[in-house]
Amino acid sequence: MIADDVTLGEGVEIRYPDLVNLYGCTIGGGTRIGPFVEVQRGVSIGSNCKISSHSFICTGVTIEAAVFVGHGVMFVNDKYPRATNELGTPLTDKEWGVSETTVRESAAIGSNATILGGVVLGRHSVVGAGAVVSHNVSPFAIVAGSPARVLGDIRDHHDAN
Amino acid sequence: MIADDVTLGEGVEIRYPDLVNLYGCTIGGGTRIGPFVEVQRGVSIGSNCKISSHSFICTGVTIEAAVFVGHGVMFVNDKYPRATNELGTPLTDKEWGVSETTVRESAAIGSNATILGGVVLGRHSVVGAGAVVSHNVSPFAIVAGSPARVLGDIRDHHDAN
Amino acid sequence: MIADDVTLGEGVEIRYPDLVNLYGCTIGGGTRIGPFVEVQRGVSIGSNCKISSHSFICTGVTIEAAVFVGHGVMFVNDKYPRATNELGTPLTDKEWGVSETTVRESAAIGSNATILGGVVLGRHSVVGAGAVVSHNVSPFAIVAGSPARVLGDIRDHHDAN
Repeated sequence: MIADDVTLGEGVEIRYPDLVNLYGCTIGGGTRIGPFVEVQRGVSIGSNCKISSHSFICTGVTIEAAVFVGHGVMFVNDKYPRATNELGTPLTDKEWGVSETTVRESAAIGSNATILGGVVLGRHSVVGAGAVVSHNVSPFAIVAGSPARVLGDIRDHHDAN
Repeated sequence: MIADDVTLGEGVEIRYPDLVNLYGCTIGGGTRIGPFVEVQRGVSIGSNCKISSHSFICTGVTIEAAVFVGHGVMFVNDKYPRATNELGTPLTDKEWGVSETTVRESAAIGSNATILGGVVLGRHSVVGAGAVVSHNVSPFAIVAGSPARVLGDIRDHHDAN
Repeated sequence: MIADDVTLGEGVEIRYPDLVNLYGCTIGGGTRIGPFVEVQRGVSIGSNCKISSHSFICTGVTIEAAVFVGHGVMFVNDKYPRATNELGTPLTDKEWGVSETTVRESAAIGSNATILGGVVLGRHSVVGAGAVVSHNVSPFAIVAGSPARVLGDIRDHHDAN
């Protein structure tokens, strides 16, 4: 479902609106969103991005233009998540400290990657499939693994197209 | 869909009933369940838990009260899964040996974590995002990585709130 | 949704057709497909397979008979994915070089595993839950970890049933 409070740019493509859950977010023009995707309140996604199936983009995340988010990518916004407060009652949004994460222009995040809260993924950086990213990633860097480490620079890969 | 044989406690919150698949399970009062979640037959989830989007909770899993399950968390209940038996015909439920897993009160499981069958996650334990847990986790322990190893104790983190 | 161009063999079981997204693919007889699964155009899945919930099977993947695909398994078909071409316009299918992946008969892939493009998983091979597979896997081999490494041979496990 696409909530009434979602702002969609021109030419956004969401082929299966019944199989997504978008609310309170802004999606830039030309961006494509696959099925089984949730985008939470306050998220901003730039233009011409591709958000692939099964991904979850939480409050606190900003995605710039031309970013590729693979399938099953999970963003995180809380270092020590809990279900309840000390009194044992369910946490409200106000008791939830959100870490902010930014994905710069033209970055690419491989499928099943996990992006912890509070990091910046630099422009044109590449996160390998299945990686767990807990630190900032420099522009153009290729990282992979759990925890993710730098493997190279995307500018050295002429087959990068 | 929420099957007729699901037992829901008072105040359970499932905002998108058309985007979940729950059957034959028991959900405690005050527990919240996100979209794209499957909970299988025989699962018991305690009160005041949070089960986040894209998670899968299989037969054989017991979750106590106040547990946080992140996004994209997958529980496993078979050590050597197979599609068919020796005769090449699809396995029936009766040919499926289920390993039992217990998540104790107030534990927290990070997003994209994988919890193998037959383990106990102790009370107030914390599983890092993206971790693959193949052994028991002690109460209050923080574990992360693939395979998951102990990184610390949640009682040492004053910012844990 | 199951698109009109999907070819289904006899006795295929898709219990929640409203919670899947299948198009342009061929599914062999007796195969079972769980909820929140996407299978893309050109994929061929053999008979008597089990494709578990939350999995994504992309263009370029061929799955033979009696294969088990766990929950949250993501296949990958592009080494350096991008959202746009050099001109900054969204990539079309024609600009997308697809790596082909084959999963041989009776292989089993654990939950939350990631299978990179261009690999062959041998017959009766076993991929551990949460593994990230970037190389071919020999027949009968058991692999696990990130990146996946060989841990043993399934023929040595008498409890493999």
